[in-house]
Amino acid sequence: MEYVRVLLLLALIPVSTSLDNGLLRTPPMGWMAWERFRCDIDCNNDPENCISEKLFRDMADRLSEDGWRELGYEYVMIDDCWMSMQRGSDGRLQPDPARFPGGIANLAKYIHNRGLKLGIYADMGSATCMGYPGTTLDKVEIDAKTFASWGVDYLKFDGCNSNVIEQLIGYPLMSKALNATGRPIAYSCSWPAYIGGLPPKVNYYLLGDICNVWRNFDDIQDSWDSMQSIFNWFSIHQDDLQPAAGPGRWNDPDMLIIGNFGLSVEQARTQMALWAIMAAPLIMSNDLRSLSNDARAILQNRAAIAINQDPRGIQGRRLLQEKSRIEVYWRPLSHLANALVFLSRRQDMPYLYHSSLAKLNFTAGSYEAYDVFSGKTTTGLTATTEFKVSINPSGVVMWYVYPAKQSPKDTGRYPYTRRKHRLSSFGKIIKPSYAVL
Amino acid sequence: MEYVRVLLLLALIPVSTSLDNGLLRTPPMGWMAWERFRCDIDCNNDPENCISEKLFRDMADRLSEDGWRELGYEYVMIDDCWMSMQRGSDGRLQPDPARFPGGIANLAKYIHNRGLKLGIYADMGSATCMGYPGTTLDKVEIDAKTFASWGVDYLKFDGCNSNVIEQLIGYPLMSKALNATGRPIAYSCSWPAYIGGLPPKVNYYLLGDICNVWRNFDDIQDSWDSMQSIFNWFSIHQDDLQPAAGPGRWNDPDMLIIGNFGLSVEQARTQMALWAIMAAPLIMSNDLRSLSNDARAILQNRAAIAINQDPRGIQGRRLLQEKSRIEVYWRPLSHLANALVFLSRRQDMPYLYHSSLAKLNFTAGSYEAYDVFSGKTTTGLTATTEFKVSINPSGVVMWYVYPAKQSPKDTGRYPYTRRKHRLSSFGKIIKPSYAVL
Repeated sequence: MEYVRVLLLLALIPVSTSLDNGLLRTPPMGWMAWERFRCDIDCNNDPENCISEKLFRDMADRLSEDGWRELGYEYVMIDDCWMSMQRGSDGRLQPDPARFPGGIANLAKYIHNRGLKLGIYADMGSATCMGYPGTTLDKVEIDAKTFASWGVDYLKFDGCNSNVIEQLIGYPLMSKALNATGRPIAYSCSWPAYIGGLPPKVNYYLLGDICNVWRNFDDIQDSWDSMQSIFNWFSIHQDDLQPAAGPGRWNDPDMLIIGNFGLSVEQARTQMALWAIMAAPLIMSNDLRSLSNDARAILQNRAAIAINQDPRGIQGRRLLQEKSRIEVYWRPLSHLANALVFLSRRQDMPYLYHSSLAKLNFTAGSYEAYDVFSGKTTTGLTATTEFKVSINPSGVVMWYVYPAKQSPKDTGRYPYTRRKHRLSSFGKIIKPSYAVL
Repeated sequence: MEYVRVLLLLALIPVSTSLDNGLLRTPPMGWMAWERFRCDIDCNNDPENCISEKLFRDMADRLSEDGWRELGYEYVMIDDCWMSMQRGSDGRLQPDPARFPGGIANLAKYIHNRGLKLGIYADMGSATCMGYPGTTLDKVEIDAKTFASWGVDYLKFDGCNSNVIEQLIGYPLMSKALNATGRPIAYSCSWPAYIGGLPPKVNYYLLGDICNVWRNFDDIQDSWDSMQSIFNWFSIHQDDLQPAAGPGRWNDPDMLIIGNFGLSVEQARTQMALWAIMAAPLIMSNDLRSLSNDARAILQNRAAIAINQDPRGIQGRRLLQEKSRIEVYWRPLSHLANALVFLSRRQDMPYLYHSSLAKLNFTAGSYEAYDVFSGKTTTGLTATTEFKVSINPSGVVMWYVYPAKQSPKDTGRYPYTRRKHRLSSFGKIIKPSYAVL
């Protein structure tokens, strides 16, 4: 009954809600507080880790000084628990005065001065998930204006404490309100995750005109189990989810937990590889002040980042689930290239997996494969060449596969393509000014 | 019906089966092939990792050259898949001639020359778990003699492909047969794991007179899930299992998987800590040739090893399971000392746990606590002092708690005890020549 009413309302949403901010042509990259720091507001006993302006300044310092910004990690994102428990006398949201004494506008300046961008959090509903002031329908406009006035660049709009009708009205309303501010503010909607994440309850074609990015499924926790349940759900439902993604509109399987406590080094590589395949936001939630070298190397892997940020913006898919518990994932990329991930969900020992590119639906041709985590290149591959990869338990082998150098008489054909394929090209994420395909 | 018959037969086992080899007064330490290398017999394609004399020589080299032997890691253990598919014309087991061309006696010499000991594997039944020749009841004596003649120091006796009656007769029979060889051979029985691991099917009082060590539960796999299911089972059933352990008789929750692919650094510390609390064998199954520094530091932690090898040999217990998903484990040690482990089964962020020694059943007194993994010491603790420990998700804080230095007038009382508590005492595992308690 209510469901029918929702569908009817959905049909009535005016086309004018279309988001038109030109943002997030590739998946957003940056850092967000929630998974690692949650709602720690105890600044007296835990001043280094509590949700406060110091924490976000610390992370902005790290992003700008430790090589992250140059790789694309540009957003510093506040999550829940930043607010004062009351709105101001002017009806505006305000930060907790003890934990954000300088205010959000000043924090935005600090972040902008370092070449970074600020994300903030609000909740479509009567209260945020942790009980701070929510954004009811009558507050959508003032909150959008407040964020714009502070210089906010990204809004995560959560959905606790609202019903499906309020969400159906509120999420598009915020989209319009953000557009109306005139400030480009990327818009992340938690909406789908609150209504099961799947059609017909979620209309992903419409959603891409309302939000730049959206959470589809459960919050990630600091464990391999949680991560597996997420990428498995996204793969099971890839026929519904994969077509929804593209430049400016992305599925979000939630934050990167690499660098925290629950993942082995292999599992951390697996998250980086699969999030790249899924064209997922690369939003870390970790402590950049005390990251291990292993975690840093994985998160700063230039080839994995380049694959994630590929300008075609086509989300990848799970191709195969073998009885051996090996899975193969694939994503088509610019310049006739492709990414492949070979994942082992075994728990015993490294597994020698035999395959060929033809078995993975590649057409006839000559290929080379750059191993994203080992840095080695395999040359002389044709579609039918039998190859072997050794995949560690809960780990991956990730390949960037591209057409091999052409024979001399073909040199005129893919000049830019060939240059892009030099490994040094992973040093920079280049948007092509021409269409190869 | 059959169960009653088993109980009757159990009552008939003669006392003369008592194992009397004087071995394993502390839990065995060393390296075993199975969890990491399984039944990889493909030496043509995988010569570095296949089950062959080279693999065991390699590991013996590492144990003797990389500081392991001095810490107590002394056994090099062959598991399944070492045998030829046929017994020799003399009825004896023989190694696969291609993979062990030098034979087991030569391998034993190689290992003994490095100050190490050799463990081997056989199976009470018609075939081993992987289908190699089993040790049927009529073969028990010849196999024991064969192992002794080769210079074997430890036998893991598995239980695939036999029924409860054969096991009930065969395991004690092998105990007698090993004793009868005159060579001290430590005896590890998989028996309990094949009959559910619990009383009344397993009589642990009797078992300690038959075997030096026994597997109670499932094989460990390379994952945090597997590890959790194991220590959780041992804790749930600690009232049955804990009293069974003591010098020369140990429960075995299976191999250490630290250094492989499935555990985070925190989870690796958790295994080391809980295996020390459980007085479990410290038998690594990993690749000592390519171990990370993190894994090496955890496995070579002198304090954790000293706690595991405490000469009183009292197995520890889980004391508390908090609603916060913090658990506390405890083991009483020599010299009035105790080990405590604070484990977080949370998946969010570090948790600040508040407690006092009094809450953990310590009696009044002055204490100090040495943090096994950070190396820091907390002084000035009384039983009622409120303390806080910050425990990472899936990680532990492990304390070695000992009586604080006595006041001057008490100096005569615990002179040796005090000396043992110097942190440098963790450099050597010392069996005391006096009884403190």
